[in-house]
Amino acid sequence: MKIALDILGGDLAPEAPIKAASLALSSDKELSLVLFGPKALIEQKLTKDELSRVEIIDTDIAVTNEDHPATFLDQKPNCSLALAFDALHKREDIDALVSSGPTGALLTGAVLRIGRIPGIKRPCLMATLPTEDGSLVRLLDSGANMDPQPEWLVQYAIMGEAYLKAIGIEEPRIGLLSVGMEKGKGNELTKTTFGLLEQSGMNFVGNIEGDHVLKGEADIVVADGFSGNVFLKSLEEGAKWVADLFTKAIKRNALTKFGALFQLKYLKEVKKPFKYANEACAPLLGAKRIILKSHGKAEAPTIEAAIHQASRLAKEGLISKIAEKVRLPERK
Amino acid sequence: MKIALDILGGDLAPEAPIKAASLALSSDKELSLVLFGPKALIEQKLTKDELSRVEIIDTDIAVTNEDHPATFLDQKPNCSLALAFDALHKREDIDALVSSGPTGALLTGAVLRIGRIPGIKRPCLMATLPTEDGSLVRLLDSGANMDPQPEWLVQYAIMGEAYLKAIGIEEPRIGLLSVGMEKGKGNELTKTTFGLLEQSGMNFVGNIEGDHVLKGEADIVVADGFSGNVFLKSLEEGAKWVADLFTKAIKRNALTKFGALFQLKYLKEVKKPFKYANEACAPLLGAKRIILKSHGKAEAPTIEAAIHQASRLAKEGLISKIAEKVRLPERK
Repeated sequence: MKIALDILGGDLAPEAPIKAASLALSSDKELSLVLFGPKALIEQKLTKDELSRVEIIDTDIAVTNEDHPATFLDQKPNCSLALAFDALHKREDIDALVSSGPTGALLTGAVLRIGRIPGIKRPCLMATLPTEDGSLVRLLDSGANMDPQPEWLVQYAIMGEAYLKAIGIEEPRIGLLSVGMEKGKGNELTKTTFGLLEQSGMNFVGNIEGDHVLKGEADIVVADGFSGNVFLKSLEEGAKWVADLFTKAIKRNALTKFGALFQLKYLKEVKKPFKYANEACAPLLGAKRIILKSHGKAEAPTIEAAIHQASRLAKEGLISKIAEKVRLPERK
Repeated sequence: MKIALDILGGDLAPEAPIKAASLALSSDKELSLVLFGPKALIEQKLTKDELSRVEIIDTDIAVTNEDHPATFLDQKPNCSLALAFDALHKREDIDALVSSGPTGALLTGAVLRIGRIPGIKRPCLMATLPTEDGSLVRLLDSGANMDPQPEWLVQYAIMGEAYLKAIGIEEPRIGLLSVGMEKGKGNELTKTTFGLLEQSGMNFVGNIEGDHVLKGEADIVVADGFSGNVFLKSLEEGAKWVADLFTKAIKRNALTKFGALFQLKYLKEVKKPFKYANEACAPLLGAKRIILKSHGKAEAPTIEAAIHQASRLAKEGLISKIAEKVRLPERK
């Protein structure tokens, strides 16, 4: 497997992505990488052995959150992400792209440089969240398309299903983000989508309310990108707010801190699920090639995990599996 | 002031509403109430002095969550809520209605029996949330209208502003729930609404993201009922999830519980903001009369607070203030 890695994406670039490249090459001896970033620095940081499985496309130009997603390809044609998209588009030997760069730039680049799988209306972003029962739930779309059609949401479900099957989850349960359990609850979009999902032949389990997404009732929850994004951000806000209240109470004074000595081990465990949320990569699904976004604040092990995930998805033939499933409903 | 109170609405009915009536009559000697519920029981629970300022419309039929909101008026014309709406519609001497009954039934009843303030497109539901800086923020719409037009959201802002002015908050800051700070971020609905709010002459402070609603950047946040509801439920889920994780860590074993003895006082304070969220009543704004929904799980003091709030809003002339403001933009 040959994975393209954007060395200049994310808050911790270039150190974290270079370190991630080193880690990934060590743990997977079959892996080779194409790195888009400053050649001299990369050659200095990697061992000779690691460099033997690495190709470097030299650039020191990064795309940032200040660059406009719609124009960065024209404005910064030699930035690491633009060069990576060019290579992914032109070279069949590259299997996937991993970047911690800005989401908007990744989306635009995917649509303009890579293009969609035939039949896919719009690529979408998948977010992964830990559930209360220790499992995971995937939310699609987490913010790519603000005003989708019902058919797009059905395609999100198809793409999410193909992704989960590729990583070994059979018959994933599909839910629809809405404001009530019953079929008739929701807005025009969810009501129409509900009917389409019922007829899709997928394992559709119905509407899932905002306060039930983490209950583990579905493996995949589909939503329009606007409410999906509102969901993610308000969930995070609720969690952070309460975590902050508890932390302040516990660290209030010498006595409360003394009390915390007896709880330290278990208090540390509270952080685990949140740590996970930052560690999961966000696949951009629906483009012709495998593209994974890792968190903007991702550290090396997180980026390394994204590289391995990209490699696994490529081996499992994710793109052709999605392409196959998308064609199916049209045959009906 | 004469307030109608639904004695059979909510999980704790009839005890909690009857107790609330007693509390409200004691703390406000100018207040009189019209109670819709079981006469014998009410007469048994209230003192002679309290009963002297009470009128009872006798019924033991309650509307429940199982009744369909669209048909309960026909199916249960003698339920407490239907009788209360009839009275509110016919009698000018009644100033407002307070009920802990089902939201859907309250909305339908308001639209079908009471009607809208002239010019108001759709009544909406306002939720009140505590902010991180110890203030309050109001969310409209929290779930009444799933597919609103941009103009409706502007009216939500107008109604929220009139409400806050009626309770003494001058020039409330208006925000718009969206997925990014910048004007161009969001879906078609929010982008159009943004422009309308800019031109509205109100104190519009721009987009507010899901993770910023509780930061105290706005006094009022407007949203479509679908994402407003998604916001509320996922915020609650995030908060409950983390509260649960911390509670489990603290109650894990004898040692951790021993540690908690040193923290008890401050751990209790963590609950305060959440308690508040349940205590705030949710006004249904846009109907021709003042209608306040208190929480389905509301206890007597919470319902009592809603009665006083209803009384205050009636004194301040909330309905005519909204009517005046709604007419203004049309003059432009």
